[in-house]
Amino acid sequence: MAVYTDITEDDLKTFLEAYDAGQLTSYKGIAEGVENSNFLLHTTQSPLILTLYEKRVEKSDLPFFLGLMHHLADKGLSCPLPLPRNDGELLGELSGRPAALISFLEGMWLRKPEAKHCREVGKALAAMHLAGEGFDIKRPNALSVEGWKVLWEKSRERADEVETGLQKEIQPEIEFLAANWPTDLPAGVIHADLFQDNVFFLGDELSGLIDFYFACNDFLAYDVSICLNAWCFEKDGAYNVTKGKALLEGYQSVRPLSADELNALPLLARGSALRFFLTRLYDWLTTPEGALVVKKDPIEYLRKLRFHRSIDNVAEYGLASQ
Amino acid sequence: MAVYTDITEDDLKTFLEAYDAGQLTSYKGIAEGVENSNFLLHTTQSPLILTLYEKRVEKSDLPFFLGLMHHLADKGLSCPLPLPRNDGELLGELSGRPAALISFLEGMWLRKPEAKHCREVGKALAAMHLAGEGFDIKRPNALSVEGWKVLWEKSRERADEVETGLQKEIQPEIEFLAANWPTDLPAGVIHADLFQDNVFFLGDELSGLIDFYFACNDFLAYDVSICLNAWCFEKDGAYNVTKGKALLEGYQSVRPLSADELNALPLLARGSALRFFLTRLYDWLTTPEGALVVKKDPIEYLRKLRFHRSIDNVAEYGLASQ
Repeated sequence: MAVYTDITEDDLKTFLEAYDAGQLTSYKGIAEGVENSNFLLHTTQSPLILTLYEKRVEKSDLPFFLGLMHHLADKGLSCPLPLPRNDGELLGELSGRPAALISFLEGMWLRKPEAKHCREVGKALAAMHLAGEGFDIKRPNALSVEGWKVLWEKSRERADEVETGLQKEIQPEIEFLAANWPTDLPAGVIHADLFQDNVFFLGDELSGLIDFYFACNDFLAYDVSICLNAWCFEKDGAYNVTKGKALLEGYQSVRPLSADELNALPLLARGSALRFFLTRLYDWLTTPEGALVVKKDPIEYLRKLRFHRSIDNVAEYGLASQ
Repeated sequence: MAVYTDITEDDLKTFLEAYDAGQLTSYKGIAEGVENSNFLLHTTQSPLILTLYEKRVEKSDLPFFLGLMHHLADKGLSCPLPLPRNDGELLGELSGRPAALISFLEGMWLRKPEAKHCREVGKALAAMHLAGEGFDIKRPNALSVEGWKVLWEKSRERADEVETGLQKEIQPEIEFLAANWPTDLPAGVIHADLFQDNVFFLGDELSGLIDFYFACNDFLAYDVSICLNAWCFEKDGAYNVTKGKALLEGYQSVRPLSADELNALPLLARGSALRFFLTRLYDWLTTPEGALVVKKDPIEYLRKLRFHRSIDNVAEYGLASQ
């Protein structure tokens, strides 16, 4: 749920004059995205998304995000396309914030995805990894090992407020992951946040990927591990091996994973579970009461982390034996 | 900002099967309305609003609200039209809540209305009052004098937490209004909540009225007094006589106010200022910290109430002398 900045019709009209976007007929703040303010615009031409970048997004990262969407769309991936202004720029300013107009992608995100949808997600993720090749702006992953240490330092002292024993459990986990984190897996542009609400479907067909605002350069298999965490666990915390198998098979049907990548998967999945655990923990401890944000439970990701720690063989994720 | 209930794509698909509304291609929770959950739907036909009625709305009132929109639209007023289901009903059920599909009205609400817009609002309000004639379901105004007493009883003891002296000021105000409230002014269906966000414009042209969920039967001039409060004060609390004049002239160009109505206006405006003061006060004192609702400041309406108390002659609202 995210509309942090309201906009006046006059400011919006002025903003739109820099684009060839038709006449505005309606704009509504929409409850999507957690980092930015998003509006759905109707015009005499096509519907559009207007995104105002709030302060959690670094302005210097915007050329990466907007350029990436352009690059991926050019390569045939179905994703929102930033509309260039008449002066060629992808970025404008509105209500004192950097702002972009982006094509509206029809489709719906699935509240209850099934294995067949996980397969499509796997395929689309692999397609995105291939389409990302040749994109020449780089953005390191700020939420990898070094970032985890920083987040943990900010939350450590109060961690046991959320669950007793967290300090004792997480400290060695971070040390272990830092000591054993892979260094030489295939890398490229990853989405890094491909949760359900960022994948649209029309019927059972995947219609596109959205929200590239965590995208960065990292191991491609790390992105796969994020999707395992995001798509293949049930509400009760159980890993769904059918979904895992579908997601991994879908991915490999487009981009086969190497033996090294497969073997690294349990460790990568521990890392990505830790990553979401840590940002949720930090938000949990620091979001002021009364903020217009739903706090997400960090413990969900602690449980996923423990699951991955228990994996002896990558086949347990649902892979046919290698 | 209101999306209280999320809906799954399967439930929505089933719900839509009862309508002839085309194929769904997108649905987004939108940040409009405070009582209900609203979604903007794109379909292969027209865009639609899906409203889920949350528990603050009495289910028994829904035939009044939906029937009224139908009646007003039939009479030529531009307002959202509930889409009938294939069985003729206007109301369905979704995610355990009563739900309706309503036509999408293009247009934008004005964050900074000018006097010319106030004139259009006056005209549209009068047109609504005339169009409401002949609508045969009745709904008493639950937020008139008796309702104020109930609200005040619930807030009185803690009122001074918001501003010292409130108890002492409001108690005699309610008693005065109860003793002097008019009994024989022209009555009919009123909107009762015609704030900026419920009036859409395309350019300077008023494109429609929305959100009839406080509509009820009451004095028509009381509705005018609500609009004076909602449209004719500046952010600094000052009454804008140019806007007041435009609103009243606009109204009277469609439906002239009688001498009795005009003379009652200051008292009615005190009442309507008190009504919004009391609901805001109650919400201020009872909304839990962390709720996804922006609390509105009750003191804004206390100031308006004091202004109306100071009015000696209705001409001070900007009317030409009678």
